[in-house]
Amino acid sequence: MADSDKLSDLPLRALLDRLASSDPVPGGGSAAALAGAMGAALVAMVAELTIGRSEYTEHDPTLRDLRAAALERQQLLLSLAEEDASAYQAVVAARRMRKETEPQREARAAALRTAMIGAARVPLHTANVAAEVLELASQIAPIGNRNAVSDAGVAAQLAGAALRGALLNVRINLPYLPIEEPLRASAPAELIRLEAVADERERAALAAVDARLLPS
Amino acid sequence: MADSDKLSDLPLRALLDRLASSDPVPGGGSAAALAGAMGAALVAMVAELTIGRSEYTEHDPTLRDLRAAALERQQLLLSLAEEDASAYQAVVAARRMRKETEPQREARAAALRTAMIGAARVPLHTANVAAEVLELASQIAPIGNRNAVSDAGVAAQLAGAALRGALLNVRINLPYLPIEEPLRASAPAELIRLEAVADERERAALAAVDARLLPS
Repeated sequence: MADSDKLSDLPLRALLDRLASSDPVPGGGSAAALAGAMGAALVAMVAELTIGRSEYTEHDPTLRDLRAAALERQQLLLSLAEEDASAYQAVVAARRMRKETEPQREARAAALRTAMIGAARVPLHTANVAAEVLELASQIAPIGNRNAVSDAGVAAQLAGAALRGALLNVRINLPYLPIEEPLRASAPAELIRLEAVADERERAALAAVDARLLPS
Repeated sequence: MADSDKLSDLPLRALLDRLASSDPVPGGGSAAALAGAMGAALVAMVAELTIGRSEYTEHDPTLRDLRAAALERQQLLLSLAEEDASAYQAVVAARRMRKETEPQREARAAALRTAMIGAARVPLHTANVAAEVLELASQIAPIGNRNAVSDAGVAAQLAGAALRGALLNVRINLPYLPIEEPLRASAPAELIRLEAVADERERAALAAVDARLLPS
């Protein structure tokens, strides 16, 4: 991926073509972050569609806070999609380093270890922000405009997929981290914690959505 | 949303801002379809990163088929994201029709019923295509390039979220369909079937991914 191509400036169709291409960047880590950004945007939309409506005035202050928090996560997850692409680009570049002589092999291995730290840390950050979006979705689902309650549900599903997808990206890179990298020891428990958070918050959000959908 | 603004031409940042805005279009139905399109693109990428590699030559014909099928679904889901926005735009337009006189109220109700049929059919189509992407992800997860196995997993998670998100969009619109609309009778069983498909295929894909991730 050329440095000049910021993901956020790419038209959607071009982004999808880029994802689908043989270039490994952007890959699943960026796609997960973008799904989370869409989830955050939907939380903000539900807040927008509720604030100022007479039936929901008692929740106005909460909804304003939820909107601000969601917009912040939307921007952050878009940045994390870019960072994931950069971090993985560094892995690809290290893998392509020459490995004919012993010094070359050592330099390549060192570059790869350093790059792998970024490639694991960025999706862990993405997972934590996606967990926050799930929390926002579970807070807005019971109080947001009922005509948009499905949007709160989609927000939760996208944030859940973003969180779990980011965790897969942490897991695939962990075995390549240097032994002394603290993340290598701390990550397994963190992954288990985040998976439990994903399950619990997504279930809470979707139960609130279910309760407010009319029977067909 | 202005007619000239095709979602596929929007830069990613603008698309997210549009999703987050108080304009209800595009909404969760389009976001779900886009998540499915990203999932399809990732299946195509995993195929691209595997075809022609010596360790995987036995799977080359299958991988070429999977790539072609994934690229087709990617385009289709991008179109469905547009169609969902148009279909919901028609609902919004009908809701804004005048309702001061009895003839106006009748015309508005008729327009709303017609618009709701589209708003339910489009996400049902999205759910069916997302189910196909899940199938492609579960097929590529055991045979694709092991360095990209997390991408196959993210593909499954995004397609699963797309499918379930699309179903929420069908469900919220069903109660508003005309009594004589066949979808109203057929949809509940179809929703149950598609939810079971989502669970089964996502589980199969993620089990294959798990089995191929190195222990950390």
